[in-house]
Amino acid sequence: MSTLFLRTLRDDPADAEVPSHKLLVRAGYVRRAAPGVYSWLPLGLRVLKAVEQVVREEMDAIGAQEILLPALLPRDPYETTGRWTEYGDGLFRLVDRKGADMLLGPTHEELFAQLVKGEYSSYKDLPVILYQVQTKYRDEERPRAGILRGREFVMKDAYSFDLDDDGLKAAYDAHREAYQKIFRRLDVRYVIVAATSGAMGGSASEEFLAESEVGEDTFVRCLESGYAANVEAVITPAPDPIPFDGLPEATAYDTPNATTIEALVQWANATLEGTYGGQDTLKTMVLRVRQPGGVWELTGIGVPGDREVDMKRLEASLEPAEVEVLPEDGFAAYPFLVKGYIGPKSLVENGVRFLVDPRVVDGTSWIAGADEPNKHYVGLVAGRDFTADGTIEAAEVRDGDPSPDGKGPLVSAKGIEIGHIFQLGQKYTNAFEVDVLGESGKPVRLTMGSYGIGVSRLVAVIAEQCHDEKGLRWPRSVAPFAVHLVIANKDGAAIDGAHRLAEDLDAAGLSVLLDDRKASPGVKFKDAELLGMPVVVVVGRGYANGTIEIRDRFTGEATEVAVDVAVSAVTAAARA
Amino acid sequence: MSTLFLRTLRDDPADAEVPSHKLLVRAGYVRRAAPGVYSWLPLGLRVLKAVEQVVREEMDAIGAQEILLPALLPRDPYETTGRWTEYGDGLFRLVDRKGADMLLGPTHEELFAQLVKGEYSSYKDLPVILYQVQTKYRDEERPRAGILRGREFVMKDAYSFDLDDDGLKAAYDAHREAYQKIFRRLDVRYVIVAATSGAMGGSASEEFLAESEVGEDTFVRCLESGYAANVEAVITPAPDPIPFDGLPEATAYDTPNATTIEALVQWANATLEGTYGGQDTLKTMVLRVRQPGGVWELTGIGVPGDREVDMKRLEASLEPAEVEVLPEDGFAAYPFLVKGYIGPKSLVENGVRFLVDPRVVDGTSWIAGADEPNKHYVGLVAGRDFTADGTIEAAEVRDGDPSPDGKGPLVSAKGIEIGHIFQLGQKYTNAFEVDVLGESGKPVRLTMGSYGIGVSRLVAVIAEQCHDEKGLRWPRSVAPFAVHLVIANKDGAAIDGAHRLAEDLDAAGLSVLLDDRKASPGVKFKDAELLGMPVVVVVGRGYANGTIEIRDRFTGEATEVAVDVAVSAVTAAARA
Repeated sequence: MSTLFLRTLRDDPADAEVPSHKLLVRAGYVRRAAPGVYSWLPLGLRVLKAVEQVVREEMDAIGAQEILLPALLPRDPYETTGRWTEYGDGLFRLVDRKGADMLLGPTHEELFAQLVKGEYSSYKDLPVILYQVQTKYRDEERPRAGILRGREFVMKDAYSFDLDDDGLKAAYDAHREAYQKIFRRLDVRYVIVAATSGAMGGSASEEFLAESEVGEDTFVRCLESGYAANVEAVITPAPDPIPFDGLPEATAYDTPNATTIEALVQWANATLEGTYGGQDTLKTMVLRVRQPGGVWELTGIGVPGDREVDMKRLEASLEPAEVEVLPEDGFAAYPFLVKGYIGPKSLVENGVRFLVDPRVVDGTSWIAGADEPNKHYVGLVAGRDFTADGTIEAAEVRDGDPSPDGKGPLVSAKGIEIGHIFQLGQKYTNAFEVDVLGESGKPVRLTMGSYGIGVSRLVAVIAEQCHDEKGLRWPRSVAPFAVHLVIANKDGAAIDGAHRLAEDLDAAGLSVLLDDRKASPGVKFKDAELLGMPVVVVVGRGYANGTIEIRDRFTGEATEVAVDVAVSAVTAAARA
Repeated sequence: MSTLFLRTLRDDPADAEVPSHKLLVRAGYVRRAAPGVYSWLPLGLRVLKAVEQVVREEMDAIGAQEILLPALLPRDPYETTGRWTEYGDGLFRLVDRKGADMLLGPTHEELFAQLVKGEYSSYKDLPVILYQVQTKYRDEERPRAGILRGREFVMKDAYSFDLDDDGLKAAYDAHREAYQKIFRRLDVRYVIVAATSGAMGGSASEEFLAESEVGEDTFVRCLESGYAANVEAVITPAPDPIPFDGLPEATAYDTPNATTIEALVQWANATLEGTYGGQDTLKTMVLRVRQPGGVWELTGIGVPGDREVDMKRLEASLEPAEVEVLPEDGFAAYPFLVKGYIGPKSLVENGVRFLVDPRVVDGTSWIAGADEPNKHYVGLVAGRDFTADGTIEAAEVRDGDPSPDGKGPLVSAKGIEIGHIFQLGQKYTNAFEVDVLGESGKPVRLTMGSYGIGVSRLVAVIAEQCHDEKGLRWPRSVAPFAVHLVIANKDGAAIDGAHRLAEDLDAAGLSVLLDDRKASPGVKFKDAELLGMPVVVVVGRGYANGTIEIRDRFTGEATEVAVDVAVSAVTAAARA
C-alpha cells in the first residue's frame, strides 16, 4: 500500500447519492472522468476483471465462444433494422473524416447476425453461441449513481443462432442456468422477472434484477408462489364473465361538470342508489398510435376509473408502435369526441379501435361517458352495450393485486437490471436474411437469442448489496485481494514477520494487500474497513507473544491465532 | 474444430495487400467490420489476449500499476494542451445529447496527468508508473493492411511520473528493458531507433521498429556500429570549416533560364572551369512557418543542390511549428524574392531567418541565386558572403551517408512501429500544473514519460514476420493453441485414441485444437498449415501400429513417436 496508486477520501463525493457510488469513490476504486464516464483505478479494475472472469467461465461452460467486435460501427446495419433512428438521442453518433456516419455500439445484434451470415452456410454449422465482453456506449439521459448507470460501460453480450424454436429454447435455458450460476458465484441477491422485450424485438424474455432500494426497475412478485415480473410484463387475471340476464338497462344521467373521474365518483356517490348503486366508473382515454412505417391512427382504451393509466405498461403493450395521448388540438378533427364525456359507444360506432382492461369482461356494468356534454351513462354493460376490439395491459399494477398465477397477492419491490435474456426469434435474421442450407436442401432462416450481463454495473451492485456503514465488503469471488494484511506494530521483528507472512500467503496462492505504510493503526484499520477485503489480518501487539489476529470483514469476528499456524489459518479463512 | 466458429477461406480478400492481412483473414482470425475496423474471431482473440498477457507481465514486473481509463473523453483537457486542434482530422470527435464536445481517445497523456494531480500531493507518493491496455481510436487517412493500421486498435499505454530528470531517466530505462523483454518473448525481430517526438512533445524518445518489408517507417542504421535512427532523427555530421584565405571572390554570372537546379548544374558543367570548376549548387527554399499560437513568418533554408528536401525531416526539425512551402501567390508580398534566383544574400539582408544544412559550414563555396532574374553567384562562401541563423535537418538522408557516430555508412530499411518510449518532460504537467509538495516544503512540478505498445498491431507484425507460403506460424508464446491435433484416420479406435490424447494433453496443461471434423486428411493438413499452431500432431495410419506423428510447423520436421509416450513427446515439442 505504500506504493499502490490509491488515495482514500474522508468525504463522500458531492455528486454521489447511492452508497455504492459514495464508497467506490471514497475507497479509490473509481474516478469520474466525465458525466457517466469513469476511470477504473487499480483496486476497482481488479474487481471488474474478477467479475469478467466469473462470467467468462460460465459462458465457456455452456459452449459459448468468445469473440470481440468493434465498438466503432458503421451506420448501415443499424439503418437496416431501423435502430439508427429508434435509439434516438441514446445513441452516440459520429462522422468520420470521409463523411461516413458511424456509431458507438450500444448492443450488437446487427453485427452478430451479419457475422454469422458471412461465415456459416449449412445446417451442420448450427447451433452456435457467440459472446464478447466489451465496452459499450449509450448516451443516457440521466447517467446516475456512478458506474451503476454509465454512458461507457462493460457488458457481456451473447447471441445464439439456431435452426428452430427448440434450439432457441435450449440456448435460452442454457443461458438462464449459466446466469443463475454467475450471480450465485458473485453472491448477488436477485430475482428473475418476466420482462417485455423493449426495443430489442422478439418474444420470450426475462430480466435478472438485483434486489436493491436504489434500483430504477420496479417489479412485483407473489411471495406465495415465487412468481415475479417486471411491472410492464404483469398480466391481469380476467374475472369470469357475468350473464346479461337481469342486468338493468343503461341509463343516461345529467352529470354537469363531471369531467374528471373524481367529480364523477362524487356525483355517483351522492346520486346513485338501489339498482345503480355501487357501480364503478370506466375511464376512457384516446390515443394516437403509429405502427413502424405507418400513419398515426386513433385508439381508445378503457380502464377501471379507480386506476391510473401506467404509460410504460401501455407503451410496452403496443410495442413496437409509437403512442401518445391525443393532444388538446387533436380533438377538433373528430367531432364525435366530446371531451370530458367520451364513452365507449361513440368510439366503437365511429370505427375507432377500442381496447379495454382485462377486468372489463362481458357483463360488467360501468358508469361511462355518454358522448354528450354533461351526460354519462350508468349501467353500461360490456359485451351488451359496447363491444371492445380486445384487451390491453394499460392500468397500473398495485400492491395487493392478485398474482396472475392465482396464488396470492402481488407485492412490489425495486431492482437493478443485471442480466437480460431474450428469445429474439427472427427479427434480426429476417433483416439480414441469415439463411443456411437446411437438411432438406432448402434454405432455413435462423432464429436468434440475445443475452446480456452488465459487467461493470455488477461491481456497483455487489458494492450496493454487500457494504455496511464502515465501507465495502467484497465477496471472496471478486475481492481485489483475498487478504488485507495490516502491520500495526512498529517493532522491527513484527514488521519483518508481516512481510514474511505476506510472502508465505502469496506462495500459498492468496493475493495479499500489505499495509506497510507509515500510518497509525487506527488509520490503517479504518482504511481496511473502507476497502473491504473479506479477510483482514493484523500483525499487532500480540506478535511479541507469537500471535496474529484474523478478522472477518463480514461478521466482524476476530480470532487470535499462533504465528506458526498463521498461513493455514488465514488460508482457511480466505477460502471459507 | 467441428464446433469452432471458424471458416477458412481459399482466396485472399480483395482488399488485402500484405501477407499478414491476407493470412489472418483467410485463416479466420479477423474479419473486417468497416474500413480500418476489425472483429476478432475466436482464434484471433486468443492471440490478442496472449500478447496482452506478455505485455502485462513485463509491465507488472517493473512495478507499473494497471488501471483503465475511458475511451470516451471530454474535450476540455485536450483543449488545454492544444491537441483537440492539433490532431486535425485524425481525431474522432462527437457531440453528446447535451451538446458537449467529446472525443475518442487516441492517447491519454492529458487524462493521466489530471488523474495523478487529483490523487497525489506529496513527494512521498512518487515515483509512480501507471498503464492500461485499452481500445484506442484514430481516424487514419489511409487505414491499411488489416489490423496493422486500424482506426480502432488495442494499445498498451503507460505513463511515468517523477520528481526529477533522474527519476524520469530511470523510468524510461525500465520501460526500455521491459520492451526488449516483451518483444523477445514475442519472437519479434526489431530495432530500437532514435526518434523524434511527433505531436507528443518532449525530448528524448526512441521507437521500437519491427523489421518488415511492408513497414511504413523508414529508418537507417550503421551496420558497423549498431547506430539506428528514424530518418527524421538522423543528425548530419558537419565537416570541419574551411579557412577563407585564398578562396576566390564571389562572382555574378548570367544564367539565363536556369531556374531549376538541373538547369543550373548543366550550365555550370558547361561554363565553369579553373578556379570556379566543380563547385556545388546551393538550393534555397522559402517557407512559411507558424509557431503554435503565432503568426506565419518567412523562413529560408539552404541545402546542397544535389539533395532533395525531405519534408518529414524538415517538419520534425521545426516542430511544434506548422510549415508550408511559400505558395506561388505568396511571393508578391516580398519584392526581394526573385523566383528561380533566390539566394542567401537577399534573405539575410532582408531579415528573413535563414537556416542551412549542417554541411554548409564556414568556408564552403556555392553556386547560388543572385536575387536578380537570370543571375547566379558562383563562389559564394558561407560565413564570408552570407551568415546563416543556424542549421536545420531538412535534406534527405541517403544510403551511404556517413553515420553520425562516424563509424561507417548508413543503410536504410523499412519497419513497423511497435513501441515508442518518450521522455515527455513537463509538457503535460505544465499544462495541468501537476505539482506535489517537495521535501523542502516547496511545490515540485512533476516530470512525465509516456510509453506505448501497439498490442493489436503486434498480432499482425508477428504474422508478418513468422508466416511462410503455406500459412501462419505462431511462436509458442502467443499461439492460440499449443497443439493442433489432426484426426486423419477413420478407424474408431484411432478416433477414440485421438480424443483420449487430447484430454491427456489438456490435463498436462497444453491447450489443444482438435480437428474432429468429417473432412479429408488433405483438407485438414492444409488448414493446420494455414492456422499455424507451432506443433501439429497427426493421429493417422500409423495409429494401428502404435505410432503418431509430431510435426514442427516452423521447421517442417516430422517425427514418429509411440502412442504410449505421446503425451511426454508432444509436451516436450510444445515447450521446446
